[in-house]
Amino acid sequence: VEFMLRGLGMIGTSMGLALAGEGRRIGYDPDPRHAALALARGAVDALTGDPQEAAEVVLLCGPPQAVLADVARPLPGAALVLDVASVKVPVMAAVHPELPFVGGHPLAGREHSGPEAGEGAMFRGQPFFLVPALGREELLPMAERIVQALGALPVRVGAEEHDAMLALTSHLPYLLARSLIRAAAELPEVAKGPGFASMTRPGLSPEALWQEILALNRGPVREAWRRLQAEVEAALNAAD
Amino acid sequence: VEFMLRGLGMIGTSMGLALAGEGRRIGYDPDPRHAALALARGAVDALTGDPQEAAEVVLLCGPPQAVLADVARPLPGAALVLDVASVKVPVMAAVHPELPFVGGHPLAGREHSGPEAGEGAMFRGQPFFLVPALGREELLPMAERIVQALGALPVRVGAEEHDAMLALTSHLPYLLARSLIRAAAELPEVAKGPGFASMTRPGLSPEALWQEILALNRGPVREAWRRLQAEVEAALNAAD
Repeated sequence: VEFMLRGLGMIGTSMGLALAGEGRRIGYDPDPRHAALALARGAVDALTGDPQEAAEVVLLCGPPQAVLADVARPLPGAALVLDVASVKVPVMAAVHPELPFVGGHPLAGREHSGPEAGEGAMFRGQPFFLVPALGREELLPMAERIVQALGALPVRVGAEEHDAMLALTSHLPYLLARSLIRAAAELPEVAKGPGFASMTRPGLSPEALWQEILALNRGPVREAWRRLQAEVEAALNAAD
Repeated sequence: VEFMLRGLGMIGTSMGLALAGEGRRIGYDPDPRHAALALARGAVDALTGDPQEAAEVVLLCGPPQAVLADVARPLPGAALVLDVASVKVPVMAAVHPELPFVGGHPLAGREHSGPEAGEGAMFRGQPFFLVPALGREELLPMAERIVQALGALPVRVGAEEHDAMLALTSHLPYLLARSLIRAAAELPEVAKGPGFASMTRPGLSPEALWQEILALNRGPVREAWRRLQAEVEAALNAAD
């Protein structure tokens, strides 16, 4: 198998490291520093300057807006294109009918970013959601084999269900963590104990990436926020 | 110095363990299993069945409602009474004028409870808030020496300031974590990734204790909740 890794940040670099020995890995990143570092770390075997270069398996590991642009056109020469965006409905809606695409989302990651934060073990034992495109269900077994090669657990899910679940378990928690950090910005550090640290850790992830995710999944995130508000209000009323 | 530890759960047991070698430690807990386990773990030198037994230094380590009852009466024979409740305004308001009291709150703890969760190192390097009662400022140096014996860092603060800070950095985070767990109760575990785990960890603390804290600090917690809602709404509007 030949792999093309498009996007060599934390996730792309981790994928490349995890796929060592599975086949030749070619990498591309618009940031030459990221590309060079991923190569130096052994996450890819070679670099290309052509973002549209194909391979048997193409892994779209860039941020959501880059994925949205990438899936909108066909890619002759690719047998499977798999992405990693945390939001699936807008991605599935943008897929070109000729693209052999399966939507993906590894439930992994840290509050870090960049190729220096990549780890070959990042996906080990973690769920990896797979969303088949309409009429492309025959690609699922191949996508599942790649997920298993990463050490992850393939979980088939519909795009709407995925985005509603993740709004509540990932996107809203990030938003709460980030908002707590902001609301407490002027308080002395001495008041921020172990609970605060644990609770706000997800809010330390890269803000630009999260702005994209929130914008692309704002309907389900608003719905999750309404549910959380109802739970908090009920608890506050019970305390009165 | 002779210490009386009233309440031998996680915090009282940790204090007893940390004070080993500082003086004789007598313990009391209304739950005989807790008392026996704290003794067996070496957190106290002896047990008493009299909750009103005095000693030179009395440490009130029970839940907030027990502390409120304890501080409302004098305690002849005590040179210093120090509590550990996470809420200070209601405690300071309940203090009997003849009680040699200093309000305390160690910013430590885990999402566990009971004497089995006690650790002598729990307070090491952590802030320990101290709130002097009106006209009792002369007790502060003695309270600070005990805090230092625990390995903690004494931080003087007013009761109102303390409760407003902790509403935002501790009580609201707990409430958010608990509410997130409830809102996501019906979702499959597979959707709950590392961010969700980190964010909801504070919500695993004992619910009964937290109900007391929320009820006693509901004004500042409601104010913190309003501030957080404003931050979240601003971020959601920015994503539209």
